[in-house]
Amino acid sequence: MQAIKDSVHDYVELPPVAAALLDTAPVQRLRHIKQLSTVRLVYPSANHTRFEHSIGVAHLAGQALSRLGIDGHRAKAVQAAALLHDVGHGPYGHQTEGIIERRVGRHHDEVTDLLSNGELAATLEHHDLNPDEIAELVAGNGELGQLVAGELDVDRMDYLVRDAHHTGVPYGTVDYGRLLGALRFVDGNLVLAEGNVPTAESLLVARALMNATVYRHHVSRIAGAMLERTSERLLDSTNLTPEEFQRFTDAELLAALQGCEETAEMADRIVNRNLFKRAVWAEWGGVPSDVVAVDHDEKREFEREIAAKADVPPEAVLVDNPGEPSMPESSSRVVVNGEVRRLAEQSPLVQGLQASQRTQWRLGVYAPEDRTDEVEKAANAILGLTL
Amino acid sequence: MQAIKDSVHDYVELPPVAAALLDTAPVQRLRHIKQLSTVRLVYPSANHTRFEHSIGVAHLAGQALSRLGIDGHRAKAVQAAALLHDVGHGPYGHQTEGIIERRVGRHHDEVTDLLSNGELAATLEHHDLNPDEIAELVAGNGELGQLVAGELDVDRMDYLVRDAHHTGVPYGTVDYGRLLGALRFVDGNLVLAEGNVPTAESLLVARALMNATVYRHHVSRIAGAMLERTSERLLDSTNLTPEEFQRFTDAELLAALQGCEETAEMADRIVNRNLFKRAVWAEWGGVPSDVVAVDHDEKREFEREIAAKADVPPEAVLVDNPGEPSMPESSSRVVVNGEVRRLAEQSPLVQGLQASQRTQWRLGVYAPEDRTDEVEKAANAILGLTL
Amino acid sequence: MQAIKDSVHDYVELPPVAAALLDTAPVQRLRHIKQLSTVRLVYPSANHTRFEHSIGVAHLAGQALSRLGIDGHRAKAVQAAALLHDVGHGPYGHQTEGIIERRVGRHHDEVTDLLSNGELAATLEHHDLNPDEIAELVAGNGELGQLVAGELDVDRMDYLVRDAHHTGVPYGTVDYGRLLGALRFVDGNLVLAEGNVPTAESLLVARALMNATVYRHHVSRIAGAMLERTSERLLDSTNLTPEEFQRFTDAELLAALQGCEETAEMADRIVNRNLFKRAVWAEWGGVPSDVVAVDHDEKREFEREIAAKADVPPEAVLVDNPGEPSMPESSSRVVVNGEVRRLAEQSPLVQGLQASQRTQWRLGVYAPEDRTDEVEKAANAILGLTL
Amino acid sequence: MQAIKDSVHDYVELPPVAAALLDTAPVQRLRHIKQLSTVRLVYPSANHTRFEHSIGVAHLAGQALSRLGIDGHRAKAVQAAALLHDVGHGPYGHQTEGIIERRVGRHHDEVTDLLSNGELAATLEHHDLNPDEIAELVAGNGELGQLVAGELDVDRMDYLVRDAHHTGVPYGTVDYGRLLGALRFVDGNLVLAEGNVPTAESLLVARALMNATVYRHHVSRIAGAMLERTSERLLDSTNLTPEEFQRFTDAELLAALQGCEETAEMADRIVNRNLFKRAVWAEWGGVPSDVVAVDHDEKREFEREIAAKADVPPEAVLVDNPGEPSMPESSSRVVVNGEVRRLAEQSPLVQGLQASQRTQWRLGVYAPEDRTDEVEKAANAILGLTL
Repeated sequence: MQAIKDSVHDYVELPPVAAALLDTAPVQRLRHIKQLSTVRLVYPSANHTRFEHSIGVAHLAGQALSRLGIDGHRAKAVQAAALLHDVGHGPYGHQTEGIIERRVGRHHDEVTDLLSNGELAATLEHHDLNPDEIAELVAGNGELGQLVAGELDVDRMDYLVRDAHHTGVPYGTVDYGRLLGALRFVDGNLVLAEGNVPTAESLLVARALMNATVYRHHVSRIAGAMLERTSERLLDSTNLTPEEFQRFTDAELLAALQGCEETAEMADRIVNRNLFKRAVWAEWGGVPSDVVAVDHDEKREFEREIAAKADVPPEAVLVDNPGEPSMPESSSRVVVNGEVRRLAEQSPLVQGLQASQRTQWRLGVYAPEDRTDEVEKAANAILGLTL
Repeated sequence: MQAIKDSVHDYVELPPVAAALLDTAPVQRLRHIKQLSTVRLVYPSANHTRFEHSIGVAHLAGQALSRLGIDGHRAKAVQAAALLHDVGHGPYGHQTEGIIERRVGRHHDEVTDLLSNGELAATLEHHDLNPDEIAELVAGNGELGQLVAGELDVDRMDYLVRDAHHTGVPYGTVDYGRLLGALRFVDGNLVLAEGNVPTAESLLVARALMNATVYRHHVSRIAGAMLERTSERLLDSTNLTPEEFQRFTDAELLAALQGCEETAEMADRIVNRNLFKRAVWAEWGGVPSDVVAVDHDEKREFEREIAAKADVPPEAVLVDNPGEPSMPESSSRVVVNGEVRRLAEQSPLVQGLQASQRTQWRLGVYAPEDRTDEVEKAANAILGLTL
Repeated sequence: MQAIKDSVHDYVELPPVAAALLDTAPVQRLRHIKQLSTVRLVYPSANHTRFEHSIGVAHLAGQALSRLGIDGHRAKAVQAAALLHDVGHGPYGHQTEGIIERRVGRHHDEVTDLLSNGELAATLEHHDLNPDEIAELVAGNGELGQLVAGELDVDRMDYLVRDAHHTGVPYGTVDYGRLLGALRFVDGNLVLAEGNVPTAESLLVARALMNATVYRHHVSRIAGAMLERTSERLLDSTNLTPEEFQRFTDAELLAALQGCEETAEMADRIVNRNLFKRAVWAEWGGVPSDVVAVDHDEKREFEREIAAKADVPPEAVLVDNPGEPSMPESSSRVVVNGEVRRLAEQSPLVQGLQASQRTQWRLGVYAPEDRTDEVEKAANAILGLTL
Repeated sequence: MQAIKDSVHDYVELPPVAAALLDTAPVQRLRHIKQLSTVRLVYPSANHTRFEHSIGVAHLAGQALSRLGIDGHRAKAVQAAALLHDVGHGPYGHQTEGIIERRVGRHHDEVTDLLSNGELAATLEHHDLNPDEIAELVAGNGELGQLVAGELDVDRMDYLVRDAHHTGVPYGTVDYGRLLGALRFVDGNLVLAEGNVPTAESLLVARALMNATVYRHHVSRIAGAMLERTSERLLDSTNLTPEEFQRFTDAELLAALQGCEETAEMADRIVNRNLFKRAVWAEWGGVPSDVVAVDHDEKREFEREIAAKADVPPEAVLVDNPGEPSMPESSSRVVVNGEVRRLAEQSPLVQGLQASQRTQWRLGVYAPEDRTDEVEKAANAILGLTL
């Protein structure tokens, strides 16, 4: 066992396969992908990376496995998958995953190719692990896959606590010790044991409050929208391939954006935190349902129309539409009076959280600070917003 | 300014009046009243006292006043009231307040008598403060009284964070820095500024999750019911006056219970954590509404009837009925789109919390471990419980 | 395994014997013995008890055993001893151990009698443990006894971190994870592995800084001296036996002191924090070596002489002489370049700490605030102090 | 006042000038300079930046000023200087400062040029601050300069606590609240008030233990030496100017190293953590004093000689010589018995720390893992090391 000092979990001991995977280039690359991408522009301490998060997830996976009495090959596979669960991420994590899905046709948790080649394949095979098996676990498939990617996975236990530690916002500080101790498998489903409705609720509440104050903070959303739109322009303006793009680190993406004529100005805005402002910040009730439902191309079309009507350059308008709210964690399973129930059925609090998503929902239209007035008028007209 | 090192707020600087009040016997007595009474029987580290909590509340009051731009005599009065807000508590805090209210006719926040005599009066007057004025603030009256006792008071900010620190349960860790920064007075009402619906929600959520896992943990409720019932027996069996009773410390109450023949056995049970167990733990839907609504005397009558039917001694049955749930914090005020709204109207999450109170609600009937079977049967019959 | 939530170590899982011992009266009594006795008069949050500390020590013992690869009967015995290591303490812990040693002839870690009778003996034997064996471990005897009571024991790892958590003074926050991971047995001696000189130093430094700011804070020393002297008077004035005295809880001792005519006034001073002040606070160089070396009776004789010369009542003078400084931890063993060395030989920092003890050393003479001038003069003359 | 959430100090309120400076490019650049450069290769969570550290230093400066009763223009200047104290740093902070000093002839705290031009000058002047005055403060000159850069400056209070928070190593957690409260000016010198010898000692001890376990961890020293040597090669191989070099961010430096043929291989080693190993790790007593005293050119000459003798390529040998140990903090001033004394004179503990520096001192010679044997032999011979 190799012991690593982590600022959240103190000493983390990783089994040999995980320690070996740590030294591969695709995992070392995660040192250069920030966990919270543009959130650091709001919470300046939020510079933690997917590398340390991956170590934390592997650690919590080990704790969960030990409490569930799972060991041997299956445990080794789950810990390897836990360590690797984020290797598929592009630069700036979730901020570029839409681009990569549209242009590469692959979600960040589809990592079969990545694991079947090069160092990762060699390392896994050296430890008697099959890359395909690990890729299935990363995708959340199979009984044990639920520990890696599912409503009660160790990924979210780690990121909530870690994001709280680094932003200074306490809401994410879940009682993961209690969650880990309450995990059970019932009929192949991962559930929380009797008496843990509040434990399950606390996880959703933590997520919801972190959404409201951190993950969906408007400054972070604006910077994220600027980054995404500019990245698309980079791909459209150069012969950079989406496959090359997706293996960038955060800094490599910024450097590429700064080095390309079409994107340099926007890149400088991001680097120097000279961000667009909100021209529109519309509540759920004021946005027509067909606008909520638009796809990516229609969103870009709206941007062009608004820019034309407002008489501003096309790149000066960004439409940021989060789409229909969803809360997959509300379907997590809890044992109540001896039977397995879906949390949302059992918990009025979770029903409140679901309703609350629409209250917090906002559609944003962003523009340079000196153009927000005309963009606001144009966007209201084009999108048919009511106040 | 005198600086005191606190485990929660680090260095606390108290103004002269608060420092002087600290040295009076009624405030020093709070060193011997635990903040969480019987909770230490579940969470062994929860031995913090109302003394350190009072220092914390005075500190947060100072922070709130400074951010609200209130200084001079009014600020001095509020900080004095904050320091004194718990001097009216009897032994074991909330656990004995029902007894004291019934027998002394006074709630713990009615402290006019206490402040108008002896050391406290002298100290207040020496610092040009009127005991009546301070008593009004402690009771939550007047505009500034809302800071001391109200839906957004600094009392709950301190106890949530402090109880989390000492139990190890993270749910109470509210972002009090944000709460303090968001306090405003609008038309004489204390409200949270624009953009703080999640801030307000976080306070209620923290409270609700602490209720479920800490404050209303069944072991603590059982010990509390044993303590309350035995204290009544002490008052009924001896010539101890309710006025003497209410000035006991925790340890003095335990010693009195151990020293009285009628209560010694139950006292030993509490001291050695040899507690009653749950014979009944009934959900809201299974308890007739007239049973939920019973008063104190009717509850005692139920205990006698159940004991008779179960053929156990009368002191072997405890009925613990929390009554109709309420959530006063849900009426706290938040500015939304420039107007002051009640939180419960604005927040589906708070509506969920309100509904959730009934889901978590339980009526308990407790008995010695070897008598729970017969007591359960008798209680089901007498109380008309349905499963 | 029973999981207990601790504010310092989060979830603690205790093996069956430890869980069973927890429920015995001698261990439950530790809930009423504060870990830091009179320190709470300086650091108001320091209300933690020897009960939660004992749980923490049992937990760390389990961690150490697991890393050392020790299991089975030997591990069970060490964890039982760890849980019981403080059951021999009298009220107010170290503050009364001098009295108990002089009058009962037994140090607090001599617990053979206590473990060989009643509940503790029954519980140990029920779990196939021999009370004598456990008593030996509590006394620090044998190879494994070093884990319970020795220079590198888990007792000090727990109390340093716990005292830091509760006082708010960070110096005690040692890296116990690293210490536990570095423990080795070499030739029957507990040592720290290669590369851990700074780890060992950090433990001594933490202790030294906690001594200077917490454990030997003058206010705590004054209150402690008042308590010790008054306790002796209680034993001299009543027919309370030393054996009864040593089983008191903190509150029972205070109540006894308040209930005895000869000690009531001093007890009220302690309860209401109306403490004596320093008449003399002499540095090492200014105190004759024969005064440093006086025994208990001579110290009492000095008090009488000073009181007579100062013309104050005999109980108005307290001489507090810490005696020759010592630092047993400086002999802890560390592997350096493959050989076991004593820390003090290897570490100039530890040599500095040893020298520093004399710099920090103070002899105190305490008296009521309005008598310090005359007591100072008399003490300087009687003790032959030079400035 | 603008409130920023910091993971270490919670809410930080910055005065207008500091808030305005935050938005300038030279300060935003600090987001991309890690506080602990290569330490993240040992402590994976240590990804915090000089940007958040600068906010923390400005915050602590504000606290210190307020406690010292300094306000108005002087306070504004000190807070501006505190925020700007690190703008002169090159990429990878201290790791490149030798190169920059040798090639640009300027230490990182000589910032007159930087502050006298562009955005920084404009922002300072807009707030009625003179760039030269601020540069003097950054350099630690003048009475108030001691708060920004001196033995008791707020820079080290922040970095110790922040580095502890992010590495997970607790030793750096100084009690900065106590330090700030003890600061005084006596005869123009910044000192700690009476009773604070342990406070001052704690600062040095924290630094010494962080040195031993974090700042001078051998893995970080190896990576640092690789980075420094490779950066020199980059400057020698390309037409990059030292002035351009010093304004790089961490990522820009890595990218430049990867993009240059002469440095690409070494850059990949750093990026993928495929580091050199220790061929030699010599203690103080084993290194001839003239070797300890060599300058930069002589060190490079040694590398060439060792490589030649070992028959390895010249870039395969790195000599890492920390030079004569020093401890400037040992001259910090403390009031003892009413007079100002140097800490080192007063504290045997600090004398121990000074002696301890030589015990911890190591000269390293590093080489690729498969060449350490021959390099060790050659280095022993060339450097005249004795074992």
